Amino acid sequence: MSSTEKLNWRYATKKFDHTKKLNPAQLDELLSAILLAPSSYGLQPYRVVVVEDAETRVKLREASHGQAQITDSSQLIIFAAETSIDPALVKKHIDLVAQTRNVDRAQLAGYEQMLNGMSTRLTAGQALAWAQKQAYIALGVMLDVAAELQIDTCPMEGFDASKYDEILGLKQKGLTASVVAAIGFRAADDPYSKLIKVRKAKADMFIHV
Amino acid sequence: MSSTEKLNWRYATKKFDHTKKLNPAQLDELLSAILLAPSSYGLQPYRVVVVEDAETRVKLREASHGQAQITDSSQLIIFAAETSIDPALVKKHIDLVAQTRNVDRAQLAGYEQMLNGMSTRLTAGQALAWAQKQAYIALGVMLDVAAELQIDTCPMEGFDASKYDEILGLKQKGLTASVVAAIGFRAADDPYSKLIKVRKAKADMFIHV
Repeated sequence: MSSTEKLNWRYATKKFDHTKKLNPAQLDELLSAILLAPSSYGLQPYRVVVVEDAETRVKLREASHGQAQITDSSQLIIFAAETSIDPALVKKHIDLVAQTRNVDRAQLAGYEQMLNGMSTRLTAGQALAWAQKQAYIALGVMLDVAAELQIDTCPMEGFDASKYDEILGLKQKGLTASVVAAIGFRAADDPYSKLIKVRKAKADMFIHV
Repeated sequence: MSSTEKLNWRYATKKFDHTKKLNPAQLDELLSAILLAPSSYGLQPYRVVVVEDAETRVKLREASHGQAQITDSSQLIIFAAETSIDPALVKKHIDLVAQTRNVDRAQLAGYEQMLNGMSTRLTAGQALAWAQKQAYIALGVMLDVAAELQIDTCPMEGFDASKYDEILGLKQKGLTASVVAAIGFRAADDPYSKLIKVRKAKADMFIHV
């Protein structure tokens, strides 16, 4: 399938076939896409919770207006942003850069200082919004790769983040649930799969300069 | 290439070969990916500026810490978020839904009311952050499709948004420049293409429940 064909095939799946599960290779490929997705400075200021446990999903569904995708999808992917971009987080990243690229740690001191300066200039709200935006890039990459693999997805924002944080113990990890994607395979009778995709006309989207 | 191979091939290109341009089919495929990318409620609360004009790019480069990708890439893609999610924007979307799916406009009144209720509950800052997150999904999708087509990209946040808005006349359109992607083809001697990609270990990214 071309990129246009796969993106037209994709839709926000409302009804999953709960008997169909991703095989381990499929799940691994989606998680690899998330891991390889770019982020500002490569900081990856988020973690990703992969939920299979049935009991947890029942609780999460209650915190998501009862939406069936939460329990009926193959897995639930929760992008949890770092609530604070602090020197400890930056240090961990710089350590990783030094280790991965076999660079002397001292050579990266200026870069570390720059990142700390950047994060210090952000209010708590701005830092979180920025971290969340990075997570949304990873979401976008994952949705595209899923379509390529003919895996259905439903990106979701309609949930109570503070309840998610409580259920999953995210707050004590310095994280907050930011956006969710249910993944799996569409039920044959999901009426939403038959709807025509609604998109702006090109002239209403693009401005050419 | 598998999805993992293409995402490993991809990197934030710092030095573009300014003699190499996307052909019209390549550009069209990237813009189609942006158009087909999902967004919350399908609202697509952003527009996308495609800049080729050399003079404009010189000005934008000055507003981007002089970064060479701004002038040397094939095109510059600027994701400009709607600064306000107001009833006029919602109405336009509902009109489009009715038209695309050939649905009686009156049947969508409840849905329109729900969307207006949602947007009313957001502060101006929250509405903008939300619109920007949607744009970041489209960015993620586009970056993945570009890698699939072996087109290089450099996502960029290091620019002065208010200057961009002024140069491109975005403010009067109710838009603000939110994130940029330079697109084109890497120069053979871009040293950044040789660097090992730095990514968290899986155990530091994923939490399995």
